[in-house]
Amino acid sequence: MVSPSPLVNLPATLTWANDQLRILDQTRLPQEAVVETLTSAHEVWRAIHELRVRGAPAIGVAAAYGLCVAVQASRHLPLDAFRAALAEQAAYLDSARPTAVNLSWSLKRMLRAAECAGATDTASLYHTLVDEAQAIHREDQRLCAGIGQHGAPLIREGSGVLTHCNAGALATTGIGTATAPIYEAQRNGVAFRVYADETRPLLQGARLTAYELQRAGVDVTLVTDSMAASLMARGQIDVVIVGTDRVAANGDFANKIGTLNLAIVARYFGVDFYVACPSSTLDLDTPDGRGIVIEERGASEVTHLGGRMIAPEGIKVFNPAFDVTPHDLVTGYITEAGIIGSPYEANLAARFGRAA
Amino acid sequence: MVSPSPLVNLPATLTWANDQLRILDQTRLPQEAVVETLTSAHEVWRAIHELRVRGAPAIGVAAAYGLCVAVQASRHLPLDAFRAALAEQAAYLDSARPTAVNLSWSLKRMLRAAECAGATDTASLYHTLVDEAQAIHREDQRLCAGIGQHGAPLIREGSGVLTHCNAGALATTGIGTATAPIYEAQRNGVAFRVYADETRPLLQGARLTAYELQRAGVDVTLVTDSMAASLMARGQIDVVIVGTDRVAANGDFANKIGTLNLAIVARYFGVDFYVACPSSTLDLDTPDGRGIVIEERGASEVTHLGGRMIAPEGIKVFNPAFDVTPHDLVTGYITEAGIIGSPYEANLAARFGRAA
Repeated sequence: MVSPSPLVNLPATLTWANDQLRILDQTRLPQEAVVETLTSAHEVWRAIHELRVRGAPAIGVAAAYGLCVAVQASRHLPLDAFRAALAEQAAYLDSARPTAVNLSWSLKRMLRAAECAGATDTASLYHTLVDEAQAIHREDQRLCAGIGQHGAPLIREGSGVLTHCNAGALATTGIGTATAPIYEAQRNGVAFRVYADETRPLLQGARLTAYELQRAGVDVTLVTDSMAASLMARGQIDVVIVGTDRVAANGDFANKIGTLNLAIVARYFGVDFYVACPSSTLDLDTPDGRGIVIEERGASEVTHLGGRMIAPEGIKVFNPAFDVTPHDLVTGYITEAGIIGSPYEANLAARFGRAA
Repeated sequence: MVSPSPLVNLPATLTWANDQLRILDQTRLPQEAVVETLTSAHEVWRAIHELRVRGAPAIGVAAAYGLCVAVQASRHLPLDAFRAALAEQAAYLDSARPTAVNLSWSLKRMLRAAECAGATDTASLYHTLVDEAQAIHREDQRLCAGIGQHGAPLIREGSGVLTHCNAGALATTGIGTATAPIYEAQRNGVAFRVYADETRPLLQGARLTAYELQRAGVDVTLVTDSMAASLMARGQIDVVIVGTDRVAANGDFANKIGTLNLAIVARYFGVDFYVACPSSTLDLDTPDGRGIVIEERGASEVTHLGGRMIAPEGIKVFNPAFDVTPHDLVTGYITEAGIIGSPYEANLAARFGRAA
């Protein structure tokens, strides 16, 4: 069993114990902290698809354990049939959401581990899978910690920090990606302010980031997404730190809808704009942002809130869940291996490319 | 009695008949179209303060009629005492909201009409006030129509138009300000698409703009505020048209929070950015945007929706209702007298200044 993250006064994003995957249902925060046990591939797929577990790194870990859950029903099968079930379940889980690269990255890594293991029976292959999922889990925590160490110096005494969506502890199994420098600076005794964009339509900023930073004792103020320019015009923001769901080889990156707006506004005001990015979120096989598939979600996320209709009946809605920000708006990528600056194509390849 | 606006299949924003001011309660749209009669200065003040009647031009008309309502209780007084009550009630109503200049503009105009009228008794002065309020009301409708005529050519066959908040028929007593070119282009048989920002926190775009454009048969799509950059990156937007609550002498202007974000994003993508501005919204006595007071509203507008809490208990909130956009981000002001381009200070003064 992997220990929960030590830093934050929060229920764990997910746990694995006694061959059971439990997740914190993030759609019910901050009102209720409900833990749910996922007992089949379909339940895992739905939990990811319906955002009960969300955040690119957490999706990666959930998918790894989820694949273990998915093949539990096949543990009585002979090795070849078990391997076939494994491939089938991995493909199924991979279809839950398109944009976060961590989902497919994690499932591919699980399949590779299964291939490379010299397992001679189903039971030992299953244990190889669990071991690999736990390795991914521990690694996610280490990536977060590394981002925290390298990113913390960006937050100085008196800084105003703006973040969007939730790239927090709740989006990972560690101290978050965009929040890692925040928690680390807090631990170092630096006094600073954080502004959390509420992040419509699903309010991950209001429901999750505000919640976890408040519980951690960080000085956090909630704003609507459209207040970023006002804050910057008033000189309240020194640095923007966001997470990402996929970074292409040239440094273009996908993140929650609204990130592109924020990057453009930060550039206009000359505010530094950093992307917290564990190497598990790099997709160097995709040359640039045009190759990133953007998930479009249903109209009701925009037209309804808590079951209540907030728009006229039958209104047309456009609801892309992510946008792509071009690399030239990024001041730097905060990775577990340090801050990567431009030229991104060369620097990302040199640090994280296959040949490196 | 002034006729309701002829163009739009909508309940009237407000009506005056039999010495009674009735308003459409805009906080209950689009679910319910509830009409409320305002029978005292306090009720008028509250209706403006609580946004049941909102939109800079509509606030101006409501304040004019509201002042008539406010002095009805003083109609038994002698002329001097009535004049004193008039001044007192005007000052009271003027305190309902700080940012929209139309409120103070309209009340000042009512007081000036009362001063200049050669009324020799209270009854005739009261009738002067009602006449002036109706003149303001008719003028508001004419201003909207003029903006529609001058702005409609900006919307071409196949255009994508983005608007923010509600500067629509519901924000005026005519065909709106930002929507006037839309309704006029629609009447001219031009085929185009409109995207309406939902406009957090109070969702005037989702609740009001989407509602009125949909009822008018305009092709309208609802988006969240943070999707503007995505739409522009996809080439979906040819022109942005917004309203305004106050325009300073140099062309800096206040409008609903999020307008500054939108103007910056439009500039980044090279998209034209127009401000629909009846001359009643010009404040040439304020030199630039730094002189515009920005109303800050309560936290619950951000933390609650329809009575439901959507953020953690006790979270700090920053909730400015407006922002100020610098004039150099504006492509032009669409006024009832034509489109005014830069240099704004000279061109606004030449067309609308006292000496003009």
